[in-house]
Amino acid sequence: MDVRLNSATFLAANCSYQESSTVIIGCPLDITTTFRPGTRFAPGTVREVSWGLETYSLLQDRDLEDLKICDVGDLELPFGNTEGALETIQRYVAAVAADKKFPVLIGGEHLLTLGVVKELSRQYADVVVVQIDAHADLRETYLGEHLSHATVMRRIADVVGEGSICQLGVRSATRDEIRYAKQIGSLCEVEEVVNRVEGRPVYVTVDLDVLDPAVAPGVSTPEPGGLTFDELISMLTRLQGLGVIGCDVVELSPTYDPTQQSAIAAAKVIRELILQFGRKKGIE
Amino acid sequence: MDVRLNSATFLAANCSYQESSTVIIGCPLDITTTFRPGTRFAPGTVREVSWGLETYSLLQDRDLEDLKICDVGDLELPFGNTEGALETIQRYVAAVAADKKFPVLIGGEHLLTLGVVKELSRQYADVVVVQIDAHADLRETYLGEHLSHATVMRRIADVVGEGSICQLGVRSATRDEIRYAKQIGSLCEVEEVVNRVEGRPVYVTVDLDVLDPAVAPGVSTPEPGGLTFDELISMLTRLQGLGVIGCDVVELSPTYDPTQQSAIAAAKVIRELILQFGRKKGIE
Amino acid sequence: MDVRLNSATFLAANCSYQESSTVIIGCPLDITTTFRPGTRFAPGTVREVSWGLETYSLLQDRDLEDLKICDVGDLELPFGNTEGALETIQRYVAAVAADKKFPVLIGGEHLLTLGVVKELSRQYADVVVVQIDAHADLRETYLGEHLSHATVMRRIADVVGEGSICQLGVRSATRDEIRYAKQIGSLCEVEEVVNRVEGRPVYVTVDLDVLDPAVAPGVSTPEPGGLTFDELISMLTRLQGLGVIGCDVVELSPTYDPTQQSAIAAAKVIRELILQFGRKKGIE
Amino acid sequence: MDVRLNSATFLAANCSYQESSTVIIGCPLDITTTFRPGTRFAPGTVREVSWGLETYSLLQDRDLEDLKICDVGDLELPFGNTEGALETIQRYVAAVAADKKFPVLIGGEHLLTLGVVKELSRQYADVVVVQIDAHADLRETYLGEHLSHATVMRRIADVVGEGSICQLGVRSATRDEIRYAKQIGSLCEVEEVVNRVEGRPVYVTVDLDVLDPAVAPGVSTPEPGGLTFDELISMLTRLQGLGVIGCDVVELSPTYDPTQQSAIAAAKVIRELILQFGRKKGIE
Amino acid sequence: MDVRLNSATFLAANCSYQESSTVIIGCPLDITTTFRPGTRFAPGTVREVSWGLETYSLLQDRDLEDLKICDVGDLELPFGNTEGALETIQRYVAAVAADKKFPVLIGGEHLLTLGVVKELSRQYADVVVVQIDAHADLRETYLGEHLSHATVMRRIADVVGEGSICQLGVRSATRDEIRYAKQIGSLCEVEEVVNRVEGRPVYVTVDLDVLDPAVAPGVSTPEPGGLTFDELISMLTRLQGLGVIGCDVVELSPTYDPTQQSAIAAAKVIRELILQFGRKKGIE
Amino acid sequence: MDVRLNSATFLAANCSYQESSTVIIGCPLDITTTFRPGTRFAPGTVREVSWGLETYSLLQDRDLEDLKICDVGDLELPFGNTEGALETIQRYVAAVAADKKFPVLIGGEHLLTLGVVKELSRQYADVVVVQIDAHADLRETYLGEHLSHATVMRRIADVVGEGSICQLGVRSATRDEIRYAKQIGSLCEVEEVVNRVEGRPVYVTVDLDVLDPAVAPGVSTPEPGGLTFDELISMLTRLQGLGVIGCDVVELSPTYDPTQQSAIAAAKVIRELILQFGRKKGIE
Repeated sequence: MDVRLNSATFLAANCSYQESSTVIIGCPLDITTTFRPGTRFAPGTVREVSWGLETYSLLQDRDLEDLKICDVGDLELPFGNTEGALETIQRYVAAVAADKKFPVLIGGEHLLTLGVVKELSRQYADVVVVQIDAHADLRETYLGEHLSHATVMRRIADVVGEGSICQLGVRSATRDEIRYAKQIGSLCEVEEVVNRVEGRPVYVTVDLDVLDPAVAPGVSTPEPGGLTFDELISMLTRLQGLGVIGCDVVELSPTYDPTQQSAIAAAKVIRELILQFGRKKGIE
Repeated sequence: MDVRLNSATFLAANCSYQESSTVIIGCPLDITTTFRPGTRFAPGTVREVSWGLETYSLLQDRDLEDLKICDVGDLELPFGNTEGALETIQRYVAAVAADKKFPVLIGGEHLLTLGVVKELSRQYADVVVVQIDAHADLRETYLGEHLSHATVMRRIADVVGEGSICQLGVRSATRDEIRYAKQIGSLCEVEEVVNRVEGRPVYVTVDLDVLDPAVAPGVSTPEPGGLTFDELISMLTRLQGLGVIGCDVVELSPTYDPTQQSAIAAAKVIRELILQFGRKKGIE
Repeated sequence: MDVRLNSATFLAANCSYQESSTVIIGCPLDITTTFRPGTRFAPGTVREVSWGLETYSLLQDRDLEDLKICDVGDLELPFGNTEGALETIQRYVAAVAADKKFPVLIGGEHLLTLGVVKELSRQYADVVVVQIDAHADLRETYLGEHLSHATVMRRIADVVGEGSICQLGVRSATRDEIRYAKQIGSLCEVEEVVNRVEGRPVYVTVDLDVLDPAVAPGVSTPEPGGLTFDELISMLTRLQGLGVIGCDVVELSPTYDPTQQSAIAAAKVIRELILQFGRKKGIE
Repeated sequence: MDVRLNSATFLAANCSYQESSTVIIGCPLDITTTFRPGTRFAPGTVREVSWGLETYSLLQDRDLEDLKICDVGDLELPFGNTEGALETIQRYVAAVAADKKFPVLIGGEHLLTLGVVKELSRQYADVVVVQIDAHADLRETYLGEHLSHATVMRRIADVVGEGSICQLGVRSATRDEIRYAKQIGSLCEVEEVVNRVEGRPVYVTVDLDVLDPAVAPGVSTPEPGGLTFDELISMLTRLQGLGVIGCDVVELSPTYDPTQQSAIAAAKVIRELILQFGRKKGIE
Repeated sequence: MDVRLNSATFLAANCSYQESSTVIIGCPLDITTTFRPGTRFAPGTVREVSWGLETYSLLQDRDLEDLKICDVGDLELPFGNTEGALETIQRYVAAVAADKKFPVLIGGEHLLTLGVVKELSRQYADVVVVQIDAHADLRETYLGEHLSHATVMRRIADVVGEGSICQLGVRSATRDEIRYAKQIGSLCEVEEVVNRVEGRPVYVTVDLDVLDPAVAPGVSTPEPGGLTFDELISMLTRLQGLGVIGCDVVELSPTYDPTQQSAIAAAKVIRELILQFGRKKGIE
Repeated sequence: MDVRLNSATFLAANCSYQESSTVIIGCPLDITTTFRPGTRFAPGTVREVSWGLETYSLLQDRDLEDLKICDVGDLELPFGNTEGALETIQRYVAAVAADKKFPVLIGGEHLLTLGVVKELSRQYADVVVVQIDAHADLRETYLGEHLSHATVMRRIADVVGEGSICQLGVRSATRDEIRYAKQIGSLCEVEEVVNRVEGRPVYVTVDLDVLDPAVAPGVSTPEPGGLTFDELISMLTRLQGLGVIGCDVVELSPTYDPTQQSAIAAAKVIRELILQFGRKKGIE
């Protein structure tokens, strides 16, 4: 008899880990969020709502069903232990990257990007991080802590170097963060990014709050005055051709998303990212 | 003594059926919805929130109070019986059209349009259907079924002919649907529509999900990247002068609309449709 | 490398189908619901919240981890096709019962029980159905339809015989339903049930609305004045010792359960049902 | 042609005003509420959810369909003008009572009872008011105002006399209110009420907050520690046989009732009140 | 020992009244709202969510921490007494203005502006009111009342003179209101405003519903088709250089804002208003 | 001029720290919560809703206004740093206890009790902790961590000794926790508690989830089958006469409490605790 297993995976992610070349990893990190918690529920919600979308993208004229995608589920992270959680993330990404698969992480709070980049910059030389975000996240410390969603890009600068960060869409920061951002030249327009990073391995991190709260209200720290959905997609389209080695979409908080519009936006961003940067075969 | 009856009708719909020339019909069809149910509650909710709007449209400089509008309430549809429900819709529209009144349907799921068009194309020759929608709804079957919100325009093409469908605003479809849409030439810009259909009887169906989820999150299948409210109204304004014989607004799901913003948008679209296409007298 | 798959199953349901003796089946039937839809989302929600409970029951001093449980996911049911959906349910239950495993269904609307009982009464002789429910569900037809959540027990009476239905907790019905219930003697106290059905194969169906809406507001048709949670558990405890061959928990509608209290109640009822009636080995 | 009007009335209230002997009046007074507003939406919501109940009461073995009930809709009350609103209520009740019909008011805030009682005590001699409520509502003034939901029973005492108030279920008050209540002897047990008021015309006002917030969270001022639903119904049953001349159910605030459980409780209380006290014929 | 008082004030409003030059006043007026109540909760909610913003504005390159701001909490207003409430507002504003401090009011319903302007036009000669709003609010009476959120600008015209009102962003009105607005020439573009009012004392009132409901759904009367957040900020920026003597942000209703996006928008508008018009020292 | 400061404190907590003998401390610890976060918002929400209650308790015939209460606001706790947060709590409680004031903590997650008890058992000899809770919280570690809401009572046993813990209301635990609880004899009935702890300094910690989810759904980990509100109050009443030196109410999560019923229950529990155990003068 044909036993039907309707497993809760992302849209069209129906391959085993072995046969896949793109790997979706849920990463429910939710420890240092200061304003509105709940990012721990994001991976599950994104999977659920993704089935309301088509596998085919009219814009790109590509279809997820032509790719080999595996959704491995959520990492189990120790609650209340920030460093332990980052190590778990790093260890898992190490395995995926070693297997030459393209990692796509669904956050979770933004701090998770530190764990991912730490590992990828061990496996690739000269990694550059493209951050699409409303907030600079460049504080040296936040409420006395070094590891936080508000310091994550500063910590990443410690890893990849201050010159290897490109920030798109930033519209909120402290005076000090802006001073620092100008000093390291991280604030960019999308055209500059393409020129600057061509030929280098690129990691793309999308903080969903770069979208206007009208589009994605369900984020930890909404900041009025952001991008429309089409503006974000168009920004991603401009990155086409870069050597992207992994990506994440972070900071969705389903608790503040009763209409599911933010989760659906996240799912569609992930679909477009995979169609644009995901691999049919393993990364060479 | 003056007995006050505060009946729950659409804004300014204070005529009896007999004296009316525009008839509002609630159509709570909610059977084949696959993603998010709840369109059954849309007609009641639209009526309730419509009272937060003015009867007067600044844009059109017209007032609902200058028209003769009757709100007949909701059709009683058999749950779990798709064909029976479509027949009920068809029968009721038959009577309204026979009485030379202008029908305005508040959905309910999109499949209801099939019942309406079936009847109107019996009473009018050469009907053309203008669909304003995020989704193509052109599948041949969906999950094995022929009658579904996802196949409705294909079934309507069976009725009015493949050449008599104009689709505006489509941004989501399967590869097969796009292939078929191109084959029958249904995907249009609004200018083309006006040229193509002038002089013919036109039915206008507005799927609320053509709006961006930021504007109307409370729909069955939100699709990021849609129209602003003003873009939709401006699209409708371009259709002015066409011989519109009826219209509907479908797919509102109040369950996913805690702010009521989607219902209010639907109500305002209906107000503008009536002011633009409704009749002061019966249809000649 | 140890690839972690955090699959979305019910609490402690970590066996493969082959090694399992208890099988959890999600059954998102949601077609004939007249009042408040959304039971389609119940299986997924129950799985998610079940992880907030312990595997161990203080009351029974038993632990789910001592059983072999498989959660096979959700059946894929054709939307808008009631008969087709019932056939799918029946076919799947046939396989599970043939494999001598104990089936536990998570609804979905109550009509699903008809599909299950149809099959079990083919495989077992003299099946009796114990229904724990606020509503009699004994209408001959409902809004003109024979297959509906409001007629399900009448249809089941057609299958197992009028004398083989025991109803506990009924507090809402039409005058006709009560007349019929008295005629067939279905309304019972829990003691009677035990006496009447001892030695026969018993199927237990729990409509979550038997609980007071204070305890489980998130159901399709809440009926004020029901059981406390402990009263329901104590009722189930009284059934201990019966030859239960399968069970279901139905009518949870997560859409109306913003606090998740109803879903958590459903999950705990399922835990207690499995601990009480589930099999360590296959059914002999 | 058969024009279907699915008007939004209370369950089974399908008579015209003329043929009716029981009249349901929506009374969306919502001006002096200090804590949580929204009672203005209660009448509409109660009507909508009432259709999820049966017309038949198992407890009373009576059916609404055996009565002649008219739902006249909502009174139109001037916002921000407390005295004007009370006059409107009084004027309308005057007409209903003059027509010998039994008035059932759906609030709205508790202050509306003042308008009703003022009129009924003009038409009937020696009226007694039975208040079922968590709060004493006996303040002399509240935030400097004489007319308020918190002073309403004090104002009613001014009308019917201090000895003509019976309070059931009070569990919250100021020290001063308790002192006053003891002085006028208003705090009763249900048995006393029956003895005290037999033979006199009785008005029954049910503040929904007498129920525990677990049962009815959606009220203006929830007070933990109240009645279960069955305890309230049983209290009403004890009043059977009294000469009830009218009743109301007040203080439901649908805004704080996302599960609709409070509205459904209100609807069922109204059903039971009508079945118990409503008239088949006019009041003699 | 260092006793930490985490008082609930607006972001960075950490001065005492005496040392402050800008004073934030919560004004929870919520009496005449006809459609959706709840503005009484706005001041508290705005304060809470303001802490999710930075004190620094990237756009203006200014920081709240460079100003002396005091948040005095909420005025205590008599419920159900419109005139009494307006007097309380007027009295408090009198004191603040007499102390040469810059008042910033957080509404509450729009009617509060009448109380403020009444007082300011006593203390300043030739005051002009710039209203940024979706609705004209120019009715002579509303539901029979003179004092209402729908008549507030008409009453203000009575105070400052018909020629001293500038209306920006109006997209909804009755035919009569538009006729009147044209007669008094109140409907403006932002450039006109600057020319017209330069050199005069200006009061700025922002009704949050001028924003599109996509941006700010949580308002009393949402009107589809409004400004984006950036369009509103850019409008405010154009007013720079005017002699602003006070301002308010009104009509936020947190009850209809489950995502908090409207409250956060209100908080950011207030931040920008204070940075642009607030005083470092007292008003000379 | 009389400047009104409507500060956001708990009901009737209008004293300065110096003059107070009871001190309310908000403690928004929200780090190790595994299931549903949001306890960080509890103190603010409890304060807000407390104003819907009376200061007077009918049950105890006592009034908060007869006590000297100060609400010091919320402790500022470092996010993502469990040990640092516990130290902050401990330091603050040290000061309050040194000043001979009675501390009442509003959580926050249950782990905060560890910080409080650590300090109090330094200042008092032979402290006993009475825990009223649905969960045993006696795990040795949880997800690898020693400091967690699920291990808190085990850590407290390390501080006060295994024999100095009394647990009331426990209905959920692992098999191991029950084994350990039996070994140390912590599971009690309320009568035993009184006998066992008389004459010793007692700390009372109330986990709101001891209430049934019907009564308090808005907690981190709801467990069906708990106490009614009156059962909890009656349990507290039985403790009267003990030498209580401090107390807390923890685990309220307003995010899951759309009706506010759980927050109001928490506020009323706190009112009753203060009236029963709070001091008019300092602790001698």
